[in-house]
Amino acid sequence: MNAALRSVALLTVLLCARHSTAADDPLPSWNDTARKKSIVAFVQKVTTEGAPGFVPVPERIATFDNDGCLWAEQPMYFQALFVLDRVKALAPQHPEWKEQEPFASLLKGDMAAVAASGEKGLVTMLAATHSGLTTDEFAKVVTDWLATARHPKTGRPYTEMTYQPMRELLAYLRANGFKTFIVSGGGVEFMRPWTERIYGIPPEQVVGSSLKMKLEMRDGIPVLMKLPEINLVDDKEGKPVGIQQSIGRRPIAAFGNSDGDLQMLQWTTISRSPQDQTPRLGLIVHHTDAEREFAYDRKSMCGKLDKALDEAPTRGWLVVDMKNDWNTVFSPPAK
Amino acid sequence: MNAALRSVALLTVLLCARHSTAADDPLPSWNDTARKKSIVAFVQKVTTEGAPGFVPVPERIATFDNDGCLWAEQPMYFQALFVLDRVKALAPQHPEWKEQEPFASLLKGDMAAVAASGEKGLVTMLAATHSGLTTDEFAKVVTDWLATARHPKTGRPYTEMTYQPMRELLAYLRANGFKTFIVSGGGVEFMRPWTERIYGIPPEQVVGSSLKMKLEMRDGIPVLMKLPEINLVDDKEGKPVGIQQSIGRRPIAAFGNSDGDLQMLQWTTISRSPQDQTPRLGLIVHHTDAEREFAYDRKSMCGKLDKALDEAPTRGWLVVDMKNDWNTVFSPPAK
Ligand SMILES: [Ca+2]
Ligand SMILES: [Ca+2]
Repeated sequence: MNAALRSVALLTVLLCARHSTAADDPLPSWNDTARKKSIVAFVQKVTTEGAPGFVPVPERIATFDNDGCLWAEQPMYFQALFVLDRVKALAPQHPEWKEQEPFASLLKGDMAAVAASGEKGLVTMLAATHSGLTTDEFAKVVTDWLATARHPKTGRPYTEMTYQPMRELLAYLRANGFKTFIVSGGGVEFMRPWTERIYGIPPEQVVGSSLKMKLEMRDGIPVLMKLPEINLVDDKEGKPVGIQQSIGRRPIAAFGNSDGDLQMLQWTTISRSPQDQTPRLGLIVHHTDAEREFAYDRKSMCGKLDKALDEAPTRGWLVVDMKNDWNTVFSPPAK
Repeated sequence: MNAALRSVALLTVLLCARHSTAADDPLPSWNDTARKKSIVAFVQKVTTEGAPGFVPVPERIATFDNDGCLWAEQPMYFQALFVLDRVKALAPQHPEWKEQEPFASLLKGDMAAVAASGEKGLVTMLAATHSGLTTDEFAKVVTDWLATARHPKTGRPYTEMTYQPMRELLAYLRANGFKTFIVSGGGVEFMRPWTERIYGIPPEQVVGSSLKMKLEMRDGIPVLMKLPEINLVDDKEGKPVGIQQSIGRRPIAAFGNSDGDLQMLQWTTISRSPQDQTPRLGLIVHHTDAEREFAYDRKSMCGKLDKALDEAPTRGWLVVDMKNDWNTVFSPPAK
């Protein structure tokens, strides 16, 4: 072999080796910072048989917040944008909305007045658009909306506003025997139609806020009607309740981005007794990248991160700095 | 080979073949009747790729009632027996119960008066024994009770009063890609401490009746207090609600034994449209064996089977005749 050929061969070997390393990295969109190292160390600890931190597969429960943790939530929660679109779509069937707030302001395009109606206004519109139809009808409305609606800033479908590093994390945990759940303040029926396709999380592993339902027979066919009455607000103190109701065991890892996740992070990571030595992981996605995404925390209307950010150091929660910890933000569009 | 040797060899082959057939039978406790054939035919239909009835793995959801379907429920629901035992155990801490019904009658041993207090009396005792403690405390109480309590007729631990044919059915369905859930009128927190060990059904696949809960901090440790307020009665019309809340998709197979399962069976098996050709299985365990178990249906206090029995033929639900369809009733004790 002459020198040139040897160089080519060596280069090939090196390139292949490098390629192989990249392919072996389960979290390629994460920069090689302390956060990534801590995540990998946690997973290795709980999966190393015979080691003191070993956790049997059935107990490897991981819970993920959705808005601002798995997909974006600015300029406002995507479900709120869905509500606004639905009010406009349903307006012809509701002539009375022309006289009722906040519907009237929204239909006139007065967004300042809509915003001023606050959470109460949103709940009014939410009840009007999320109830009075069956669960199957609602799922179809959500699916149809997602197929055509576009994000006001990026122009992308909302299901293409998911975070690639978090999707890698979901897959990495599942490859290590974890069962991954969504535990979101968002509506459970708003998420289930698409979480399996986008995140690989099946409907039975989605926990969220919900309305009460009533079984009815319609021409001999059973349907579940969505009622304008809240069943569970799966946010803040409601998250551990939702976890207990639907999962029935304590997660060993929880992922969030706002004060709405504070109690879930506490529930997951606070040791119950000095004897409890199970490794536990709490992680907060901190939105620090105004250029590639949005930068916000303590003062944000959506995804306010204040108390949980203050508590993170003493609890040992990882705070992900999106700008520096992630080399990619959004997942590429599905083919 | 002489004739004797040939006979031995032939016998060996026959015995091995027979042994192999028995070992291959996933439902050995089921007699070879029409019910067993229908179950096997259903499973083959939904698992045969390319065939018209094929159902992808994620949609193979099967829901099982518990009382009277997976374990016994006579002389009364085991959770009711648990309630009676708990009232007696807690009586020293509740001197006021000596003056309050139905506690007073129970503590005096007047079971006729307790029975006369009916469902209202039971709910009063249920609230008193199932709330005012944390979810972890309650799980421990259940586990401790099951370790020592014995069934009044058989003297066996309650977890040894499970039906072997149904446990084989659970395993058979899981081996064929099904996800098996419990959907019971019983308390979800009463079942979760033992369903994984006994049935192989993890806590997150148990749906049941529940009380509301409240998150509290106790000396810096988060706990969920059980409140004396009903969250969901997962029975009758409540079963499809529980299924939708916790599973979020429609089962393709449902198993029950009483009118409490009527709506779950309807929800699971009634075709939503002429285009819907998915095979669906509804099954009712009919308690017909007074000798090996109990015989009851239309007039029973616990597990009343009346309307669902009448509806079974027109809906095509299988009605299992315990006496003739099962060659074994109870599972052998766990080693
Ligand atoms: Ca969030
Ligand atoms: Ca039953």
